[in-house]
Amino acid sequence: MTRKEPLPTLPAEKAGRVRIENLKPRIDCGRFPIKRTPGGKIGVKAHVFADGHDLLKAVLRYRHIEGEWRELPMTYLADDLWQAEFQVDELGLYQYTVSGWIDHFATWQRDLLKKFEAGQEVSSELLEGAAMVEAGAARAGTPDDEWLAALAAMLRSGPSLEKRVRRATADDLSGMMERYPDRARQTTFEPPPAVVVEAAPAGFSAWYEIFPRSLTADPARSGTLADLEKFLPQIARMGFDVLYLPPIHPIGRTNRKGRNNALAVEENDPGSPWAIGSEAGGHKAVHPELGTLEDFEHLVAAARKEGLEVALDIAFQCSPDHPYVREHPEWFRHRPDGTIKFAENPPKKYEDIYPLSFDCEEWQSLWHELKSIVLFWIERGVRIFRVDNPHTKPLPFWEWLIGEVRGEHPETVFLSEAFTRPRVMYGLAKAGFSQSYTYFTWRNTKSQLTEYVRELVESEVNEYFRPNFFPNTPDILPEFLQFGGRAAFLSRLVLAATLSSCYGIYSGYELSENEAVPGTEEYLNSEKFEIKPRDWNKAGNIRAFITRINTIRRQNPALAENRRLRFHQVANDQIIFYSKSTEDLGNIILAAVNLDPHNIQEGWLEVPLELYGIGEHEVFQVHDLIFDNRYLWQGSRNYVRLDPARSPAQIFLLRRRLRTEQDFDYFM
Amino acid sequence: MTRKEPLPTLPAEKAGRVRIENLKPRIDCGRFPIKRTPGGKIGVKAHVFADGHDLLKAVLRYRHIEGEWRELPMTYLADDLWQAEFQVDELGLYQYTVSGWIDHFATWQRDLLKKFEAGQEVSSELLEGAAMVEAGAARAGTPDDEWLAALAAMLRSGPSLEKRVRRATADDLSGMMERYPDRARQTTFEPPPAVVVEAAPAGFSAWYEIFPRSLTADPARSGTLADLEKFLPQIARMGFDVLYLPPIHPIGRTNRKGRNNALAVEENDPGSPWAIGSEAGGHKAVHPELGTLEDFEHLVAAARKEGLEVALDIAFQCSPDHPYVREHPEWFRHRPDGTIKFAENPPKKYEDIYPLSFDCEEWQSLWHELKSIVLFWIERGVRIFRVDNPHTKPLPFWEWLIGEVRGEHPETVFLSEAFTRPRVMYGLAKAGFSQSYTYFTWRNTKSQLTEYVRELVESEVNEYFRPNFFPNTPDILPEFLQFGGRAAFLSRLVLAATLSSCYGIYSGYELSENEAVPGTEEYLNSEKFEIKPRDWNKAGNIRAFITRINTIRRQNPALAENRRLRFHQVANDQIIFYSKSTEDLGNIILAAVNLDPHNIQEGWLEVPLELYGIGEHEVFQVHDLIFDNRYLWQGSRNYVRLDPARSPAQIFLLRRRLRTEQDFDYFM
Repeated sequence: MTRKEPLPTLPAEKAGRVRIENLKPRIDCGRFPIKRTPGGKIGVKAHVFADGHDLLKAVLRYRHIEGEWRELPMTYLADDLWQAEFQVDELGLYQYTVSGWIDHFATWQRDLLKKFEAGQEVSSELLEGAAMVEAGAARAGTPDDEWLAALAAMLRSGPSLEKRVRRATADDLSGMMERYPDRARQTTFEPPPAVVVEAAPAGFSAWYEIFPRSLTADPARSGTLADLEKFLPQIARMGFDVLYLPPIHPIGRTNRKGRNNALAVEENDPGSPWAIGSEAGGHKAVHPELGTLEDFEHLVAAARKEGLEVALDIAFQCSPDHPYVREHPEWFRHRPDGTIKFAENPPKKYEDIYPLSFDCEEWQSLWHELKSIVLFWIERGVRIFRVDNPHTKPLPFWEWLIGEVRGEHPETVFLSEAFTRPRVMYGLAKAGFSQSYTYFTWRNTKSQLTEYVRELVESEVNEYFRPNFFPNTPDILPEFLQFGGRAAFLSRLVLAATLSSCYGIYSGYELSENEAVPGTEEYLNSEKFEIKPRDWNKAGNIRAFITRINTIRRQNPALAENRRLRFHQVANDQIIFYSKSTEDLGNIILAAVNLDPHNIQEGWLEVPLELYGIGEHEVFQVHDLIFDNRYLWQGSRNYVRLDPARSPAQIFLLRRRLRTEQDFDYFM
Repeated sequence: MTRKEPLPTLPAEKAGRVRIENLKPRIDCGRFPIKRTPGGKIGVKAHVFADGHDLLKAVLRYRHIEGEWRELPMTYLADDLWQAEFQVDELGLYQYTVSGWIDHFATWQRDLLKKFEAGQEVSSELLEGAAMVEAGAARAGTPDDEWLAALAAMLRSGPSLEKRVRRATADDLSGMMERYPDRARQTTFEPPPAVVVEAAPAGFSAWYEIFPRSLTADPARSGTLADLEKFLPQIARMGFDVLYLPPIHPIGRTNRKGRNNALAVEENDPGSPWAIGSEAGGHKAVHPELGTLEDFEHLVAAARKEGLEVALDIAFQCSPDHPYVREHPEWFRHRPDGTIKFAENPPKKYEDIYPLSFDCEEWQSLWHELKSIVLFWIERGVRIFRVDNPHTKPLPFWEWLIGEVRGEHPETVFLSEAFTRPRVMYGLAKAGFSQSYTYFTWRNTKSQLTEYVRELVESEVNEYFRPNFFPNTPDILPEFLQFGGRAAFLSRLVLAATLSSCYGIYSGYELSENEAVPGTEEYLNSEKFEIKPRDWNKAGNIRAFITRINTIRRQNPALAENRRLRFHQVANDQIIFYSKSTEDLGNIILAAVNLDPHNIQEGWLEVPLELYGIGEHEVFQVHDLIFDNRYLWQGSRNYVRLDPARSPAQIFLLRRRLRTEQDFDYFM
């Protein structure tokens, strides 16, 4: 009845009855890795199913890319959905996937019991089971094969049917057969997605940006890296983790910009640090006015002693005086007359900058040279880079560069300074950037903040895009800070530092510097174009407040993560109210921030007691961590009054009531 | 300054700056095709973006698998999202994808204009543009290269800068350059997803199931295929498209089931048609009591003349008397004593059925034989198959079988009779089934219906899972029909026929047959086990109503699709109100159904006028298609009163007011 001609062979793997679908998390079908830091967990879910009614087993498989595959059993949730969680502890790439197979033995046990309990004769079934146990013994090998073989013999010829059925379905046999499953026809999800494990600061860090040249009393004399070294304790005391320096390389002279971005330059104008390169060198040199390479290495080591990582600025562009211009004109864009083009954003012109041409004919040598710049500074101790305008260079370039650097130095962290369209910002994150600047800088109202932050923490974006919230940068003095006074600086700091596990400020923030070029977001007398000595102890400075906030961040692990951020109700549009908590609820932080820097605002917070397992009639303690006051609250509705003159924000540690004698921390 | 050792080559495609992401529609990353019928459209969207601020172009590419790639320009929507739509007209597989590239010429035009309008000197820029136009001329070839070359010459040395700029940015040049784009570095999304184009009945058909053996006046004499042929006009007059027959093959004798599924069989009991195979033959034979193969071929041809396609039941299982049991015992499951196992769902036993073992050692010859069964009936004129219990056979088997059959006979339609977990039902649809039975059979309340139907039509499921709504089957007489009387049969018919473009009934429905085995959903004296002559003209039969509903379906293209189904408000939980419309709004159907078969229900419908561009104060006509009454309505709130004794449903054709003299259909 079958055809006599030879049959085309069906691929054996097609006979695998188990299907695995919708494995999550997964970015663009596994094209890009998700991200974690050491100790991070990945909860994996997948639909695992087959035809019919057989019982299945599923395991989560994972490995460090250089290690062996490990497996964890998955738990069945409902509707064919399974889950398991693994933890990553080493830097670098991990892969993970799911395997599933039909558990014929467990299926047989289930059916045997049903038949026996319905009074059916099951001696034939017991022989089938015995054969399965014997096959299990063969898979097991010594020493378990003897136990299994004896059990199989008992199933074949034990004293009574009832005893044989009970033996066949006993837990010890189930456990032993589970240890030696028949996985010959298992299905494994392909290709396995990856997770890149980055150094801790990629996920949790407070950044401080400073121009070393401004650490001087005399605006005509540049501050130096040595001056910065003396200043380190003040930065460290404020509780920052990362000290980010604008480019420290020689600054070009040709077409140098004067103060306030003027085309006409005066003798003492220091120029923009982003106009990189002069006869003193390029991207691998230190500006002579700042010091030497040795000074820099000394600074990096001294900073590390203070708990600070020095982050360098990677700005892949050149001043007309950069050595590359002479040595590698082929890396630049040329006019028809052969001259090199400066940067433009028509009709704007940036005559002090030559952009590199990433898709020039000699792009391969260019890309390798740029990679060597990053490696050069890594060899001098740098582990963190802030990348200038990465969105004007090709995404494949970054994916290649970061991949190459991480292959040798997995601890390297890259911050993307891209203020551009969402797709490109997310694209850079997928390409490998650890963190990114964000639109937070311009999100001021409750609805703006809530909508944007929810997009970042509640959608898939959260798996690969880590926000770094900067309330200001040397390029951006937002209107809210220009006109909100000191209170605006306080509230934006609290928002940045508690909404996002990574945040940063550009120095001057602690002095509430708010003078802009009228009608713009540019700082007046911008430090980008001049040396700017400061009186750090000026009256009204907010250094103590910053120190307090950074201390709160370090003491409360809930703030080291964004995933569990939730917004809550308060019937006042000028107050935003949210919480973060650790997964075990050992640390619960509530924050209420007055978004109106001019007026006292009050309101009734709706505390999400159900999230914390607190009853509506239970009393709990909230500890105001800014002013160190404690309150006993009861029920979900609780009153706050936020006076911008004092503090526009309250950050509460929620403590559940003492339940055991060991829980004395409640009163600490 | 560059390294001197040879550089590892970077893959050229990495230099492609354009990224394409989130191409939709796409099922499981393109692993499975989406589905359409001829004339169907596929709206494709994708994020297409690159670094920087250059202008991009994107095209949708598509082809029939045996044809050339064709291209359509995509439209930019917002946030880097592009879209285009293509139509499929031929049966079989199409592929589609998106290509994107940087449009250097358009970017140059934009920047040139900005610079010129800002008063900058642009003669160098014009030379660059001239070079681009010359390159365009080289790509163009004759005859357009001459026009382009002349234009390039003009850009180089035209009369005035202003004239040259105007010429460079004129539409005719833009259009010509668009015809010859530089796509050397384009990015194309890989792998291209596919769409399978199936025959029209896959997407739109009304099914009627009948047991030919019951078309007899004498329950002791089996009706025949010839009797069925005489009955065809009555089925056709009711407006059905598909005539579905339970298995027509010889029925086994061994362990044959008696009436009402009794283990004891009496002499004249005909047995279940699903116990396939006897000494008279197996899956490629016709039961002698029904007639011959020739009778069957005659029936298929006669049905087609009446506008009916005959659908056969594919039940891949055997009675103990099936020739396969003797000829291919290796295809079955065996007990340790060598005997063949009958079907079980412990503790239930089906002694009259031997299941096939799809993963037996000889699975390849089995699979090929099963495929040959399908081809056998296709060769005898069958184009539609209803597959019995596909969820108890491996998904890879169906994917292979349907793929193989479709390769030779792309017009073949498969209906999956799987009542099982959602993942498996959807898995069968992904594996290739054109349609599927659904949970509609048990969804009775407004919230149940709304939630379930929205999942089917509004989620991604809609791209690959086509519901076929059956209010009853020989296996299922739902409680609602058992106790709701004639009105229940009317309302469930309207729901099935208008919520889903495919629906079907099992005969007897038109007689409101509702006697069940008490406490079950089984028909009393089920036709599965006995011959059941009927009086088709019994008083109270709903044949005229069914005819009316099927006529409405055929006359209103809005009902041929599910994608544009929307539910609307009515403040009465016993009334469900929804609409379907064609994309051009040329056909708009509103349906209101009383879900309470016992009482008159009334309510105010909220007609979604904004969807149809009708103002709140405009008068429009609704034409009650069941009773052929017309009403003038104004505003979104409109009253209905649904009397189950008369009709529990109203189906309205909404006609917008006459706007042109040609629109006389308004009064027809």
